[in-house]
Amino acid sequence: MSSYRQPVLGILGGGQLARMLALAAAPLGVKTQVVDNVADACAGQVAPLIQADWNDQAALDAFAAQVDVVTFDFENVPAEAARRLAGKVAVYPNPDALAVAQDRLTEKTMFRECGIATPAFMPVDDRAGLDRALAEIGAPAVLKTRRFGYDGKGQFRLKTLADADAAWAALGASAATHGLILEAFVPFQRELSVLAVRGRDGEFRTWPLTGNWHTDGVLSLSLAPAPDIDDLQIRAAALARTLAEQLDYVGVFALELFVKDGELLGNEMAPRVHNSGHWSIEGAHTSQFENHVRAVLGMPLGDTGVRGCSAMFNWIGELPDMAPVLRAVDGHWHDYGKQPRPGRKVGHATVCAPDAATLAIRLRDIAQALGREEQAEPGLRALGGTSA
Amino acid sequence: MSSYRQPVLGILGGGQLARMLALAAAPLGVKTQVVDNVADACAGQVAPLIQADWNDQAALDAFAAQVDVVTFDFENVPAEAARRLAGKVAVYPNPDALAVAQDRLTEKTMFRECGIATPAFMPVDDRAGLDRALAEIGAPAVLKTRRFGYDGKGQFRLKTLADADAAWAALGASAATHGLILEAFVPFQRELSVLAVRGRDGEFRTWPLTGNWHTDGVLSLSLAPAPDIDDLQIRAAALARTLAEQLDYVGVFALELFVKDGELLGNEMAPRVHNSGHWSIEGAHTSQFENHVRAVLGMPLGDTGVRGCSAMFNWIGELPDMAPVLRAVDGHWHDYGKQPRPGRKVGHATVCAPDAATLAIRLRDIAQALGREEQAEPGLRALGGTSA
Repeated sequence: MSSYRQPVLGILGGGQLARMLALAAAPLGVKTQVVDNVADACAGQVAPLIQADWNDQAALDAFAAQVDVVTFDFENVPAEAARRLAGKVAVYPNPDALAVAQDRLTEKTMFRECGIATPAFMPVDDRAGLDRALAEIGAPAVLKTRRFGYDGKGQFRLKTLADADAAWAALGASAATHGLILEAFVPFQRELSVLAVRGRDGEFRTWPLTGNWHTDGVLSLSLAPAPDIDDLQIRAAALARTLAEQLDYVGVFALELFVKDGELLGNEMAPRVHNSGHWSIEGAHTSQFENHVRAVLGMPLGDTGVRGCSAMFNWIGELPDMAPVLRAVDGHWHDYGKQPRPGRKVGHATVCAPDAATLAIRLRDIAQALGREEQAEPGLRALGGTSA
Repeated sequence: MSSYRQPVLGILGGGQLARMLALAAAPLGVKTQVVDNVADACAGQVAPLIQADWNDQAALDAFAAQVDVVTFDFENVPAEAARRLAGKVAVYPNPDALAVAQDRLTEKTMFRECGIATPAFMPVDDRAGLDRALAEIGAPAVLKTRRFGYDGKGQFRLKTLADADAAWAALGASAATHGLILEAFVPFQRELSVLAVRGRDGEFRTWPLTGNWHTDGVLSLSLAPAPDIDDLQIRAAALARTLAEQLDYVGVFALELFVKDGELLGNEMAPRVHNSGHWSIEGAHTSQFENHVRAVLGMPLGDTGVRGCSAMFNWIGELPDMAPVLRAVDGHWHDYGKQPRPGRKVGHATVCAPDAATLAIRLRDIAQALGREEQAEPGLRALGGTSA
């Protein structure tokens, strides 16, 4: 008998992404160890959880000693904490890549270096800087915090130049702590994300482009493969690859893109598994979660091909009735084990089908049974061939 | 916000079946609590584990108080322990069904009551009883313990009547404790299993028949759907349904069948998720593990339709190199997190494909890369259209 020792994956952050990573890690023989600052973090239901703050160096040192590789379920782990861990244990993605993605200014600057077009942007350090940026970029525009924003939080949309005072009243106080950036508001036609994975050895793969729709800044519905993408798949995958190589990125990431008049614009990069890739659990031969585990542990990457077409509903705030999804052909339920709270991501459901027409029928049936027609509507429109 | 309380599934036994049940339970929002008499039982890596013996009433009572439903990963939990628990908490499958399946004599008697043909059998209580049974049944025959046998353990094959002494020397000591049964040895052409699930409300579903091949009494390879089954699917599903209704069974079970000259013979029933259903994790829309969790918790059952064709390799004793499976298109690895030991089930791998011809290519490629041509050979023969 050969000796057998299971690798241990450490995850900073114990939310639903860590939970789904742990569930994907187990069949690979990988044990998971999670750190979170909340005792009832939902990943703790499926893996051992250490409760600690990101600045608790003793706790993080003890964590590092227990694991073979560290990764993230949360991109706002302080880059300094990640760098400190990287002195003790392998950390993927590398802390510099994490730091780039944590700051909208460095992120968009990097996008441009990689040939990824972006909306016009300018840093804003003070109230006068906001006026200068507005003069340069014009309105409509969006004032955003550079750091610690996600799911539409830390954003203010300026419809006209007259909204400058209101924008500053909303976010000016964050200028010193989080930094601010003004971005041109782009009247895009579609939102897509490219989910990609890069291995330790540089092997690179993408899943088919995902089409996304948001409600109040939070992902509401995804379709994969996104309908009617023509050559966008090749172009988007090439951009993602350039970015990954520039960052020496290891693991899964999402590059969120706007499509405007056939042009791809980089919106942001999520340096982790991503909500718009949840469909891959059932809809692809290898899920984003499994491939992230494989990548950071140096295992061969898995096939990112799809099993037909998939649609994902995000459940925000609270879960609807599970029965219509459980009864649906190829319907799949994901309850994250989190207490309901307004705006909180508490679960999702995926429905798959061999082709787009069948998917449209299944999506419509589930939406009707749940009274969620509005949530499904843009996806049904896209599947029907009408431009969404 | 509605209130939210997660149901808790208790599992008696903490091996790989409990592990895979827990992994399937989590996305349904179900927490798992495992009891095993071994501290490092592999299900304990993904769910909280109580270490206790089956006769530790205080520990089982404490366990019962923590869970909503109790089920089994191991059919040899003493039926008295199951009955005691059933006085405190819902237990599925019911302890009487468990008791029937634990004893080859009551099991085969029940098969006949349900119209399931069986090989000839007779109970054997002593050495003279073995002679009487041999005179009735003839040779070849198999002497088996009535209780606590699995994976070919507790069996002795008699090629001729002259083997009676050797059979008694091997198993006679078990006559008083486990009971014995002599069964006619059937020169069957194929071994099939029907995986079935029955809900609390009586809803009944089967997965497509699985074709199985054993080595040294342990499952080695499965194919699903089993090739060339003609009307056997309908006949086998009807038998399984009759049996399930007779037992008022709730949950997943496997009915192992021999095919001899087109006739189906009942070999045994496993009152739990079963090794021959592991392919369903990736090969079916709802896996046996998920449907067992749904059934015992009273949730709607899921679609048992398949995603093309699947083959499963069982890994016995130790794991082979994982890389060829990880690299295969639609190849899936399952490491149970168990220390290697001769004869121990330590993992499995499933490969799926849209059709039988593509599956044959993928199965052959993986087998060659692993040096496991012999293990794959009967499956390749069956997929090639030759009777296996």
